[in-house]
Amino acid sequence: MMRKISVLGSTGSIGTQTLDVVRSHPGEFQITALSFGRNADVGLKQIHEFHPAIVCVQSKAIADSIRQQLPLGTKLVYGEDGLIEVAVHEQSELLVNAVMGSIGLKPTIAAIESGKDIAIANKETLVMAGQIVTELAEKSGTELIPVDSEHSAIYQCLHGNVDSEVQRLIITASGGSFRNRTREELVGVTVEDALKHPNWQMGAKITIDSATMMNKGLEVIEARWLFDIAYEKIDVILHKESIIHSMVEYIDGSVLAHLGTPDMRVPIQYALSKPERLDLPGGKRLNLLEIGSLHFEQLDTDRFRCLALAYEAGKTGGTAPAVLNAANEVAVAAFLQGEISFLKIDELVEEALTAHQTVQSPSLEEIIAADEETREKVRSYLK
Amino acid sequence: MMRKISVLGSTGSIGTQTLDVVRSHPGEFQITALSFGRNADVGLKQIHEFHPAIVCVQSKAIADSIRQQLPLGTKLVYGEDGLIEVAVHEQSELLVNAVMGSIGLKPTIAAIESGKDIAIANKETLVMAGQIVTELAEKSGTELIPVDSEHSAIYQCLHGNVDSEVQRLIITASGGSFRNRTREELVGVTVEDALKHPNWQMGAKITIDSATMMNKGLEVIEARWLFDIAYEKIDVILHKESIIHSMVEYIDGSVLAHLGTPDMRVPIQYALSKPERLDLPGGKRLNLLEIGSLHFEQLDTDRFRCLALAYEAGKTGGTAPAVLNAANEVAVAAFLQGEISFLKIDELVEEALTAHQTVQSPSLEEIIAADEETREKVRSYLK
Repeated sequence: MMRKISVLGSTGSIGTQTLDVVRSHPGEFQITALSFGRNADVGLKQIHEFHPAIVCVQSKAIADSIRQQLPLGTKLVYGEDGLIEVAVHEQSELLVNAVMGSIGLKPTIAAIESGKDIAIANKETLVMAGQIVTELAEKSGTELIPVDSEHSAIYQCLHGNVDSEVQRLIITASGGSFRNRTREELVGVTVEDALKHPNWQMGAKITIDSATMMNKGLEVIEARWLFDIAYEKIDVILHKESIIHSMVEYIDGSVLAHLGTPDMRVPIQYALSKPERLDLPGGKRLNLLEIGSLHFEQLDTDRFRCLALAYEAGKTGGTAPAVLNAANEVAVAAFLQGEISFLKIDELVEEALTAHQTVQSPSLEEIIAADEETREKVRSYLK
Repeated sequence: MMRKISVLGSTGSIGTQTLDVVRSHPGEFQITALSFGRNADVGLKQIHEFHPAIVCVQSKAIADSIRQQLPLGTKLVYGEDGLIEVAVHEQSELLVNAVMGSIGLKPTIAAIESGKDIAIANKETLVMAGQIVTELAEKSGTELIPVDSEHSAIYQCLHGNVDSEVQRLIITASGGSFRNRTREELVGVTVEDALKHPNWQMGAKITIDSATMMNKGLEVIEARWLFDIAYEKIDVILHKESIIHSMVEYIDGSVLAHLGTPDMRVPIQYALSKPERLDLPGGKRLNLLEIGSLHFEQLDTDRFRCLALAYEAGKTGGTAPAVLNAANEVAVAAFLQGEISFLKIDELVEEALTAHQTVQSPSLEEIIAADEETREKVRSYLK
């Protein structure tokens, strides 16, 4: 039986790889709905290949520019309302949320309320509104399935085991583009340098987040919600090869780990097919003999201040993680546009967190307000 | 509810650690029956601590020597029939088979026939009679639960997954006492040298088997039966730290691994408690930061001929694995007694396999006959 899937963010890195997985398994999955922002060339090709019933684009202008090129009967919508329409499309059973940034939040909530399972590649959804989202998912009996390689690893290592028997989660970190540099050596690094991730090919924002280690911080917050576990039981360990994607330590001393080559199609595919596993056509298999050795080092949180800030924001709770995320998004965008230095990113995040009055148990509106206020505030710091 | 357990081989390495696990978890397990060979001092202490309903010792002479020291009401039996009586004791639900050598075979079969689950630390049972034992277990709906750290690792990595989605099993090998030596450098090594295993504290026979890599060969044959998988899908990889205890690669490219410190109580405890996990009091937790790195190397089967012989015997099937095992037992005993050199072990095994006419789909009697004939033959080679 074909699994019916909506994809938010179909032309991005995770989105296109999701469609790769669907393409590789004819008869297993059907794309019922998709959304993309502005990349009409790629988006139109996807529409003609997968024939979704509904398509959402970023704006009316983009919608108007592609309307004549759609197959007959394809519904075309746009903007935030359109995104929600795609997310809750009646035919789809699973929503792959692969949009970037906080725009994924409302559609995810809408999809959960309409009973869809969520394959969640959008970090912000859980970082900003982890409590609301997980409570809603529990209430509507839907599942949040991780797509990040680290969380998919943990999800797979937990499978078949009992949550209460977990001693701790061990998230591995490659260390990103600058893992071998001291803080002093980070002064004056360029955007180009920062975008050279040693192990993974990813988008610009997430590659910078890897270099600052904020990516790992956001993953820690995500893990807290996805696996309903205290921050004290989530460790991060430097593992430069990125071969062990993460681990679960159990109370009996057993540690289960998920290993693999750096291929995002593996966790994406598992999110679509689980609990079954499908063949991965053309996938390079792990060869530990070729790799030879795996290394583990302690993380220096003085060096990687964003990670410490993320733990702090996570433990503070309420609106603090949304502030962390918003400040980071603005700061990274400013760095990518050459407005600030690399080391200014964590400074801005810290400043925003310090200035923010945390609201505990916030409503969705309060979270979005904190997000917007933080963006304005950090932008004002930049002037 | 207390799980009721019979232990065969209670004074050996696995036996005493099994009782450690039981002792550490008051209220979880009850020892209903136990057997030991000649170690009356340790055995009597165990009897007074755990109060089994029935005890078996190796011979009438040993039985007579301890009879007066037993608690009132403890039934005392001896020899092979006694072992079977312990194995099938009506109160016990699980048999821990931790005897050394082929003596574990008949009691295990008897226990399976009487509906007990088997925690199997006795390699010979599956090596000699894998087909018979697994078919019987399936027929009586009992489970064979691995106790070896490698097989327990695989068992845990398979848990919650579907067997048909397994691409291959990857058994790790420490390489044993002589892993850094070439074949030439093995000429003239002493028994003492061979007994110095770098990672695990084990009995003499199994430590020698680690040094020759026959231990890994027997594990491959065990894995074939425990996990119902073709030899072509079982790989062995040199991993000198023995931290990754083994791995399962799935068709989607995911590799699940079990890691831990070298503590046999972990797999023993899991065999007793599964699918639950219990705390491991006093157990040292894995610290990958302390360990720093993990290494992987290809195995040289010219150097480790016993492993190649084991694959060969396994693929030949029928009585061949029983011959491999019997020849190895006699050869190792001869080496331990200083009768032959270390390198003579694999030569004798190969000679025995070459001389043997394999019987396909053998009965238990034919297997035992092959075992006995091989022992006589190899002993005759020694004269």
